[in-house]
Amino acid sequence: MSTAATLVDDIKKIVGVHAVLTTPADTAPYLTDWRRSYTGTALAVVRPANTNEVAEVVKRCVATNTPIVPQGGNTSMVGGSVPDATGRAIVLSLNRMNHIRSIDTDNDTAIVEAGVILQNLQAAAGQAGRLFPLSLAAEGSCTIGGNLSTNAGGTNVLRYGNTRDLVLGLEVVTPNGEIWHGLSGLRKDNTGYDLKHWFIGAEGTLGIITAAVLKLFPIPQKRAVALVAVESPAHALKLLNRMKYAFADRLVGLELMARVCVDLVLRHIPNTREPFTEHHAWQVLIELNDSRADAPLGDWLEAELGAAFESGEATDAVIAASEAQINALWQLREEISEAQRLEGKNVKHDISIPISRIPAFIEKCDAALMNTFPNISLVCFGHLGDGNLHYNCGLPSQGLANAEAINQIVYDHVDQFGGSISAEHGIGQLKRIELTHHKSPVAIAMMRQLKQALDPYNLMNPGKVV
Amino acid sequence: MSTAATLVDDIKKIVGVHAVLTTPADTAPYLTDWRRSYTGTALAVVRPANTNEVAEVVKRCVATNTPIVPQGGNTSMVGGSVPDATGRAIVLSLNRMNHIRSIDTDNDTAIVEAGVILQNLQAAAGQAGRLFPLSLAAEGSCTIGGNLSTNAGGTNVLRYGNTRDLVLGLEVVTPNGEIWHGLSGLRKDNTGYDLKHWFIGAEGTLGIITAAVLKLFPIPQKRAVALVAVESPAHALKLLNRMKYAFADRLVGLELMARVCVDLVLRHIPNTREPFTEHHAWQVLIELNDSRADAPLGDWLEAELGAAFESGEATDAVIAASEAQINALWQLREEISEAQRLEGKNVKHDISIPISRIPAFIEKCDAALMNTFPNISLVCFGHLGDGNLHYNCGLPSQGLANAEAINQIVYDHVDQFGGSISAEHGIGQLKRIELTHHKSPVAIAMMRQLKQALDPYNLMNPGKVV
Repeated sequence: MSTAATLVDDIKKIVGVHAVLTTPADTAPYLTDWRRSYTGTALAVVRPANTNEVAEVVKRCVATNTPIVPQGGNTSMVGGSVPDATGRAIVLSLNRMNHIRSIDTDNDTAIVEAGVILQNLQAAAGQAGRLFPLSLAAEGSCTIGGNLSTNAGGTNVLRYGNTRDLVLGLEVVTPNGEIWHGLSGLRKDNTGYDLKHWFIGAEGTLGIITAAVLKLFPIPQKRAVALVAVESPAHALKLLNRMKYAFADRLVGLELMARVCVDLVLRHIPNTREPFTEHHAWQVLIELNDSRADAPLGDWLEAELGAAFESGEATDAVIAASEAQINALWQLREEISEAQRLEGKNVKHDISIPISRIPAFIEKCDAALMNTFPNISLVCFGHLGDGNLHYNCGLPSQGLANAEAINQIVYDHVDQFGGSISAEHGIGQLKRIELTHHKSPVAIAMMRQLKQALDPYNLMNPGKVV
Repeated sequence: MSTAATLVDDIKKIVGVHAVLTTPADTAPYLTDWRRSYTGTALAVVRPANTNEVAEVVKRCVATNTPIVPQGGNTSMVGGSVPDATGRAIVLSLNRMNHIRSIDTDNDTAIVEAGVILQNLQAAAGQAGRLFPLSLAAEGSCTIGGNLSTNAGGTNVLRYGNTRDLVLGLEVVTPNGEIWHGLSGLRKDNTGYDLKHWFIGAEGTLGIITAAVLKLFPIPQKRAVALVAVESPAHALKLLNRMKYAFADRLVGLELMARVCVDLVLRHIPNTREPFTEHHAWQVLIELNDSRADAPLGDWLEAELGAAFESGEATDAVIAASEAQINALWQLREEISEAQRLEGKNVKHDISIPISRIPAFIEKCDAALMNTFPNISLVCFGHLGDGNLHYNCGLPSQGLANAEAINQIVYDHVDQFGGSISAEHGIGQLKRIELTHHKSPVAIAMMRQLKQALDPYNLMNPGKVV
């Protein structure tokens, strides 16, 4: 068996010499996180080609008490996929395991390896006449393994759920190097504890997801998109309810944007324009999809918006008349983060609140922040339909100096309104300590019980989550 | 603290003397299972009124090493909710915890105690203008706690998912008597391991679910139902694909029935009639729902069925023209179990198979059974859209004599086709040993690791699942 001295050489024998990176130039991209907040060091970056190699590498690491940091596209927003500074760990990159093993159009499933880039799966599903609905900003570089390990959200959650909801089965290498062959393609299976849910969202701390069976869906045949001006988040909530009840699962997205978000985009992003003649305090972007090309979706949307005007929920609206107009409206939403980056540093929050309490949360939290920081810019936007707000706070020329005080105010309000301090980005190392202040001790204790049971030597992505 | 000798008296002090049943007449309904396959004995049946009482009772049981069998409506199909014959356990009935604590129509959630009868929640949701979509044969007596603990399925899974998919948060009394207050109403929450999924489907072996936050949905405004004759399960699969792609989530149910099923219903259930002029080998029942009353759902269904005739997928069809006709068509499906019971004893299987492999499974498994038992009656029906078959085998005048040999053939084929030996009924005591022959040792070992970590003295529903 391996000793610490021979570990890297032993791993080279398993995965091949070219699949083990050790020079600073080669390893650098794997050691710093996406947001450039964390840089660690590692014994080596190991890039296995298949599940058996992953299992053998894990066994060698267990024998030598070597921590393992699993990594996909390294696009974590919370420092979840880079090692610490001790240099004791290996980074186990799944990016060579990038095969779509099979697509079954009669079962509407794809069997996908962890290193497949999300965009590539979207494309392969499309070529098979199916939709893989997970979609998020990093889709050109993030991987399915990372999406699964972080239970990624994105823009289609309202209709299709989080990543967790798209999974039928997993293949996992356990912390002792065994392989769990759980690639079931079943929609119903009540044979004991549902193990896949242990690993989804566990950020690699309980084992390494090497492959998954994912659900595919019909490709929508028709879209209708509108941007609607509303007076307040409370009006937006009423509009959400109307749209949910009129359209059920045809409602694919409902995004809320404060005035300041649109102003930022208009200021910083070329070729964008204000779609309304007046400036409105809040705007709601609505996307409807239909499986039928002959569904009169635009007429229905117009009728519902008419009713919304009459009831006072909406004050103005534009309905996109072409695919180009659809893209222009979505650009106002999708470019907010980039526009804010160009404006200057800001303190970001990825929070969720019960949908019914979002108007009160925004009112109270806005007021508390402005009370302490009169110049604060509150860039509040997000997936209202999921209760997920990106509530980003900018202080002109102060950068992140007051980040801690701002976090305190925001997270206090999140607690008060029964919310979550991480809706879709996970915990990683960024929020690990913060989590202990918000989660109940009973919950934390149970998390530790499972971690201890499966990974008694704390070798799987140590320093993350628990 | 309690001793074994004082336990029942101590529990009476916690829950009140009238909430502890000890006489045979009082306890009998709690000690025999729904299908009358198992009868156990118990120290007492304890009926706490609230979560704190549950926690206090659990603490006393831990102190005296007393097993606890949690029980809801006692409608388990696999002996999951009754104690063994040792008489050491208490039955902890949740049926006094039957309050719907709140309904939030802006968050589309209900907070519900474990002892609420499913039908009562359906009714309360309806009164609030919302749908709680879980629906199954036992809904008049099964409870939400049991539905959660068994991850119940039912007739709406195709559209709304299993019970697991309807849950946003849980309140649980852990095996050491602590309360996990996890009644979150959030759609997105990536703050560590998703504990609720540990308890859902765990059949009470990891703790006691005392309450849940459940999702509510828009009430459909329009229905269209058709019964379609097809030549074979392969044709039914093609029809399923057509309907999925034409209607997406409007497709709420798609049920397959072999000829023999319909014949049984026509023979044993009064006021039923054959809807076709000819007798067809296989029939498919299709239900579509729409959120819009003005959607031309019937026209669309007719158009799709027309295309299905042209392509040879379907050979005949009737579309229900009234609510009465809808009910008559559904009766042919819903009365199969009862008709088969009236026909005689049969060996039941609740299995799932990847949808794409169902035609081949039925062909191979039918042939193997008929080869060994030429007179066997194969009552094959179920939720084709979920890959879930109720594959019930009757042998005239032999009762259950050949049950073991039949099971062997069926489960061998289930394994061969990548299926599950329990799609929606769970494991309980009926399938606990069988499970070890079908589940991978790695999976069983991980299940035992969590069980051991949370419940080291094996006091929670011992003898079930693991």
